[in-house]
Amino acid sequence: MSVYPKKFLLLIECLKKLPGVGKRTAERFAFELLSWNKEDLSFFGSTICELKTSVLCCEACGCLQDKEKSCHFCSEKRNQNLLCIIASPKDAFALDQTNSYNGLYHVLGSLISPLEGKHAENLDLDKLFNRIKKLNIEEVILALDSTLEGDATSLFLNEHLQKSHIKVSKLALGLPVGSNLEYVDQGTLSQAFLGRHSF
Amino acid sequence: MSVYPKKFLLLIECLKKLPGVGKRTAERFAFELLSWNKEDLSFFGSTICELKTSVLCCEACGCLQDKEKSCHFCSEKRNQNLLCIIASPKDAFALDQTNSYNGLYHVLGSLISPLEGKHAENLDLDKLFNRIKKLNIEEVILALDSTLEGDATSLFLNEHLQKSHIKVSKLALGLPVGSNLEYVDQGTLSQAFLGRHSF
Repeated sequence: MSVYPKKFLLLIECLKKLPGVGKRTAERFAFELLSWNKEDLSFFGSTICELKTSVLCCEACGCLQDKEKSCHFCSEKRNQNLLCIIASPKDAFALDQTNSYNGLYHVLGSLISPLEGKHAENLDLDKLFNRIKKLNIEEVILALDSTLEGDATSLFLNEHLQKSHIKVSKLALGLPVGSNLEYVDQGTLSQAFLGRHSF
Repeated sequence: MSVYPKKFLLLIECLKKLPGVGKRTAERFAFELLSWNKEDLSFFGSTICELKTSVLCCEACGCLQDKEKSCHFCSEKRNQNLLCIIASPKDAFALDQTNSYNGLYHVLGSLISPLEGKHAENLDLDKLFNRIKKLNIEEVILALDSTLEGDATSLFLNEHLQKSHIKVSKLALGLPVGSNLEYVDQGTLSQAFLGRHSF
């Protein structure tokens, strides 16, 4: 491996840090990049260099925002009395694509995960509660991952929000659309049973 | 999708051009890049920008070469009478890792592929034959892909090289090491039979 040119090796090391990219894939990407023309390469490279300055996080909700524009997710056209709590900015895009929700978002930034040293104190609860108060939120929707960390965070937030007498809801658990019963895991099936509703 | 910040969308478009990377993976990579710190991002970005100037192709053999150093594959320590013809610079690294070959390489750059508009005229034969003459090559090893394009190119080169009375060999076809007979395709099996040798 040491015969690769130095800069080429450094590029491979960078590419290996992308999720799901091992040595082989990184090498493949690096050779592909080498075949790009100079303009495309410098456009790609400078887009990466400038990423942090051109793509910002909205100070209010934490979602991604163009440097020049106001936050799409804080727009006045959206229902200002609904607040959906999400773990990361990318969740806002996924939820918005469903066209099922037109309220505001609040990015938590991280979930409670004692094993990774992330405790409840790491969540900026003051910011969240100030926002809920200021916006006069009627309902808070907890849209966190259905994992140990997500559930722990939901339970914790629910406890605090109930104290403030705010309506709290969370996303439904059940069968994924298009799924076959025989391939659905036991946990999901039992949640689908518990959450059954009249036809 | 249009709600992504503009620069973020452009980054996703660039990432989608990498081999095997679709929209979903590109989005995942882009969000991952967003979580990198500024130093790592600018190092990665500038490495890409400078790729074409810091990693060069050796003028003699066509293999990758550090800007400051002489070509590893043209080193005087290697056997100067053996020439291995390969399609792309990456093949040199793969072959060298086997420690089975210590001669010189010659990168062809492309294979004959009439469907893609790549004909025999596109191969820089003059450069190849001048090099063979100058180096006084004793044996040329054709190490091209075992595909239609690779085989067509090997046949073509063999014809020309035989005329010049140079010994030409090509890589053996047969069972991959560690393979089970029942999973090996018919073509490979029949080549392994044809190429059998005394124990």
